[in-house]
Amino acid sequence: MADLYKEAGVNYDILDPFKRACQRAAATTTSFLRTHGFQEPATIRGESVYLIEAPDAYYAHVEEALGTKILVADAMYALTGRSYYRHVAIDDVATITNDLCSGGALPVTVAMYAAVGDSAYFTDERRAADLADGFAEGCRLSGATWGGGETQALPGMITPGTVVLGGSAFGRIAPKHHRIQGDVRDGDAIVFLASSGIQTNGLSLCRKLAERMPEGYLTPIADGRAYGEALLDPSVIYVRFIAACQSAGLPLHYAAHMTGHGWRKLMRLEQPFVYRIDYVPTPQPVFDAIVATAGMSPHEAYGTFNMGVGFAIYVDENDVDQALALASESGYTAWRAGTVYAEGQRKAVEILPLGITYEGASLNIR
Amino acid sequence: MADLYKEAGVNYDILDPFKRACQRAAATTTSFLRTHGFQEPATIRGESVYLIEAPDAYYAHVEEALGTKILVADAMYALTGRSYYRHVAIDDVATITNDLCSGGALPVTVAMYAAVGDSAYFTDERRAADLADGFAEGCRLSGATWGGGETQALPGMITPGTVVLGGSAFGRIAPKHHRIQGDVRDGDAIVFLASSGIQTNGLSLCRKLAERMPEGYLTPIADGRAYGEALLDPSVIYVRFIAACQSAGLPLHYAAHMTGHGWRKLMRLEQPFVYRIDYVPTPQPVFDAIVATAGMSPHEAYGTFNMGVGFAIYVDENDVDQALALASESGYTAWRAGTVYAEGQRKAVEILPLGITYEGASLNIR
Repeated sequence: MADLYKEAGVNYDILDPFKRACQRAAATTTSFLRTHGFQEPATIRGESVYLIEAPDAYYAHVEEALGTKILVADAMYALTGRSYYRHVAIDDVATITNDLCSGGALPVTVAMYAAVGDSAYFTDERRAADLADGFAEGCRLSGATWGGGETQALPGMITPGTVVLGGSAFGRIAPKHHRIQGDVRDGDAIVFLASSGIQTNGLSLCRKLAERMPEGYLTPIADGRAYGEALLDPSVIYVRFIAACQSAGLPLHYAAHMTGHGWRKLMRLEQPFVYRIDYVPTPQPVFDAIVATAGMSPHEAYGTFNMGVGFAIYVDENDVDQALALASESGYTAWRAGTVYAEGQRKAVEILPLGITYEGASLNIR
Repeated sequence: MADLYKEAGVNYDILDPFKRACQRAAATTTSFLRTHGFQEPATIRGESVYLIEAPDAYYAHVEEALGTKILVADAMYALTGRSYYRHVAIDDVATITNDLCSGGALPVTVAMYAAVGDSAYFTDERRAADLADGFAEGCRLSGATWGGGETQALPGMITPGTVVLGGSAFGRIAPKHHRIQGDVRDGDAIVFLASSGIQTNGLSLCRKLAERMPEGYLTPIADGRAYGEALLDPSVIYVRFIAACQSAGLPLHYAAHMTGHGWRKLMRLEQPFVYRIDYVPTPQPVFDAIVATAGMSPHEAYGTFNMGVGFAIYVDENDVDQALALASESGYTAWRAGTVYAEGQRKAVEILPLGITYEGASLNIR
């Protein structure tokens, strides 16, 4: 598995030291917040979203990007003539606003970044229109306004025939107690929100696997659809659920956006806890195809992909029923999935029905 | 000239219709601002920075990116072993915060976007450290805090051996009358602020020209330095000047960040005015090398590059001396360069000492 990822050009061991160098350099600039009348909340560095503390609100700022999923849309467009560009533009917004809302912030504005190797990519009016419409739809699903962006041609830097999609958001937490800060307690319940499928992480591997399938992206999977089509189901945007919990006054002790590192992200919080999962929802058929083709063990699969779970929240045991009701009312599928335990310094995710354990050392993202 | 740009893969005619499609789609999402208690200022769409109006402040959100300048740093590193990565990381911040301050907003947080084709790019620790340190220095020069970001490996999408650098900023205008809105009047003075050289625009062409020079990037220019080194002088960040004018209560009627389209950007404002320039500062030697090698006319050169002028402000004639003094005190070189005239529906930039005129139709950026 690790070798397969390296073959695909993604090496987290190398990438993460640069991230850490950036975090160290970034920390030297914190004092400027005070000159603007703001301050930096304790322990915010390393979280998915950067927060700025004002007297009566937190402001949130996040930069994110889609990754290689666009290459699947490019390939499917070439193979079938069907445009999935609207879907991947929704995905792009999802990567941004899901990170933002995982800290309790609601996105106010989202900006697009789009860079191509050859500006001819945008002469296809259907593709250009679908990308624009999808980004706007992602903003609507996030309750946010699309506030500008940057479009570039970078000849010699980006492969012709595709687009690098990213962007950023400005958000807000008001009142301040809506912040999701990581005050998880022994006995808290873990609630899962369904993903739509692969969403936006692990796509480099998924693309590699298409090469091993008999008909590539057109290979039928168990639901009768083509593998490539199933990969392109647009991501779920979880903002409305977070907003619903806030409106109802339901305290969210923590929220984890399940991106890279699969279910290991459940222990994203720095403090040590054991996250014991006793219910595992059935993953979408696309995951069966991925796991079978890669020859992955369940341990590898759940440590890499979201496996049908896009978002997790941690709430007081007494709030579980209301959380599930709010999810249903706001259009999400959710399950009560497990319990958090304080067991000294131990940090781990245990997926009991599958006999899988990830120890804390397997997640090194700060 | 136009052909040379097309050869270099940049076609503004094609790129801009996509931008306009995005602007149309973005405009359909404006109403969400109200659900957050904000509103959209009139005429903000198409400006360099998106503003969000609150009762007591404007918030600002901008997404920007560096472009192909990084390829010059990559080439010079390979040729000389000297790392200019700190400079280009400053440039990256400059593209973001200069756009932001052109609307009167001061950047509060800046986030980095960095994407590579192969994560091995970051195994060079000096390069990784210089990129991180330069980004932090750009934040310091902008009076902003580096608030996170996104680092990606995109195999198959980005050429190995380089990095796509971009990012975003969150800023604020408080009190609200510090907004630079475009209330230019007949008789206003035009003040230029010096650039450090090429800064961040026109680099695709500059790279192409290196191929025509006898020693490529190592070709000496008039100041004795190598062409490639001169191209990499870090951009000036104009935030401190804007902040100084605001602190002094000096009203800025408009500000133009001189990026693509050279001095045609002087007429960025939608309303028709004639911008008559009567003083032309001497451009840096790097521009002589560019213009001579490209065989450009002055009309082409000043319509493409900043030619030594990175920022322009428009102020009341009576405020010119104070503006020049504030520039000097805050560490900038500035000149009184010309006057704005209201001449009916005519929109043009006239550079009198050079006999150059750009009519309004030559700038189509909204």
